[in-house]
Amino acid sequence: MNSAAFDVVGIGNAIVDVIAHADERFLVDEGFASGAMTLIDAERAEALYRKMGPAIESSGGSAGNTMAGIASLGGAGGYIGKVRDDLLGEVFRHDITAIGVRFDTPAATAGPGTARCLVMVTQDGQRTMATYLGACVDLGPEDIDADLIGAAQITYLEGYLFDPPRAQAAFRAAAAIAHRAGRQVALSLSDPFCVGRHRAAFRELVAGDIDILFANEAEICSLYETEDFAAAAAAVRGQVAVAALTRSAVGSVILAGAESHVVAAAPVARIVDTTGAGDLYAAGFLYGLTRGLALPTCGAVGSLCAAEIISHVGARPEVALAGLVKAACVL
Amino acid sequence: MNSAAFDVVGIGNAIVDVIAHADERFLVDEGFASGAMTLIDAERAEALYRKMGPAIESSGGSAGNTMAGIASLGGAGGYIGKVRDDLLGEVFRHDITAIGVRFDTPAATAGPGTARCLVMVTQDGQRTMATYLGACVDLGPEDIDADLIGAAQITYLEGYLFDPPRAQAAFRAAAAIAHRAGRQVALSLSDPFCVGRHRAAFRELVAGDIDILFANEAEICSLYETEDFAAAAAAVRGQVAVAALTRSAVGSVILAGAESHVVAAAPVARIVDTTGAGDLYAAGFLYGLTRGLALPTCGAVGSLCAAEIISHVGARPEVALAGLVKAACVL
Repeated sequence: MNSAAFDVVGIGNAIVDVIAHADERFLVDEGFASGAMTLIDAERAEALYRKMGPAIESSGGSAGNTMAGIASLGGAGGYIGKVRDDLLGEVFRHDITAIGVRFDTPAATAGPGTARCLVMVTQDGQRTMATYLGACVDLGPEDIDADLIGAAQITYLEGYLFDPPRAQAAFRAAAAIAHRAGRQVALSLSDPFCVGRHRAAFRELVAGDIDILFANEAEICSLYETEDFAAAAAAVRGQVAVAALTRSAVGSVILAGAESHVVAAAPVARIVDTTGAGDLYAAGFLYGLTRGLALPTCGAVGSLCAAEIISHVGARPEVALAGLVKAACVL
Repeated sequence: MNSAAFDVVGIGNAIVDVIAHADERFLVDEGFASGAMTLIDAERAEALYRKMGPAIESSGGSAGNTMAGIASLGGAGGYIGKVRDDLLGEVFRHDITAIGVRFDTPAATAGPGTARCLVMVTQDGQRTMATYLGACVDLGPEDIDADLIGAAQITYLEGYLFDPPRAQAAFRAAAAIAHRAGRQVALSLSDPFCVGRHRAAFRELVAGDIDILFANEAEICSLYETEDFAAAAAAVRGQVAVAALTRSAVGSVILAGAESHVVAAAPVARIVDTTGAGDLYAAGFLYGLTRGLALPTCGAVGSLCAAEIISHVGARPEVALAGLVKAACVL
């Protein structure tokens, strides 16, 4: 591999999270599937926000969270995503650049406002999300910075990007650029319902363009239309060079060629809010890969980062992850 | 006392907090007094925000935090404060009404935007604040809802309100209405530098119009221009019916007539962010008073609420304080 100026470049929906506590009853009344992400329009977002409890606002977006994690670990990261030139867009740009991630995608100057994700966190720490995509629908192939992609060891794509209309094309363009430059392409499946909405396209992408795949149990089972995790794991093996399959408190399973590695979850005193757990696992894992670490160590770093993020409200790290990893003597 | 529809009505600067971690060096470089609140203009706020780390946004404002605490304890609260009709104004209104506080003050439709407080939290959990008052400067006597004040057992004023130009008049109008209705008036001194800016006016108000006074050590010492806490405590005794003087980890001292009560601080596993500690102590204390509890018990409830707020980032409660107080068997 050529030397690279960036460790990882993430491409994703640029979103500001609005996080509130909610009870199970509220989710049922509003018709949301617990733990999943539902797309909503601007009107529904306004109506839902009015019914939600007091909230905090925090920059989010799956790949955005991952890139914040990479930067917090000490990695060099870039981000591609679309905000509007409004207050939330400024907040998103401030937060991701302030943590040290390069973010040059121009803001939309017309059209819908910056995306918002209304995150409802239940007593058990589980999060259920309702996303208004807003300006994210304007992301297209023209936003893919070929120099940035070519300069990154790994290009990381979030599966949620299959929802906005022109992002799949942006995705494929980025993957092609990365591979032409001799780089690797990683994908997170993001959400079982998102996989269900775009299953054929996801399968084609995974089989043809993805080197490193992240998925949780529900997502990998949805991709291969099975309820059996072992069957889904067998199906993905060989489709990608590395598959990191996360299983919440059970930890993760890493598949690479004929190898399998089981990695434990890191201990958490109290699970407060699981938002961003998968995103930060990916951050730790990818950071490890770019440092040439063995796969089980990559998984252990991922587990540590995920444990930090679920111990507090919000999906961006509250402490420097580099220090956390160092203190845990994982590296 | 007549029966009251509201337990407490708070009057304050309606502010959205922008909270980021910072190191001591940054505070020194920017010229901020650690632990204090500095007023800044819009331009400085923009420049400072650009230099700050990744942040979260959370509704704040000293009296706003206190009222959120009262509601979280199960009390009936109202709030008077000025936002602009912009996104942050909507966020502030959403959060305070969603927790159950009555907030009817109309938003300004012109002039500066909703106020922001840039909160810099250092490793030790100490917070240093830089406030752009924005729309708060438009609060005036015409915003005082006489019916609301008359219907509340206690009207609570934050000392920070001495800064915007017309709020002192609003303050005095509210105190007069409350007393005419046979109600009580409480004041928090808010900040030692704020006391320094308006010492004569504060002393006159305390001596003439205040029934219940909240202050920390630095504030009460600033009010009476002494470095000796005992001397300051002696000076305030008799000026007000009740003075609750908070001393961080040492707990609080409550003075009432010839009585003195020393109340311990509640234990905290890890102090993450002290923003709102005084505000939430006041919430617990005032809630206790409206329930007719003995003064030491009022202080103990205040200590519990303060302990919750300093255990996480942000100055609004993350859990229902009513449950917390119940679990601690204080009531």
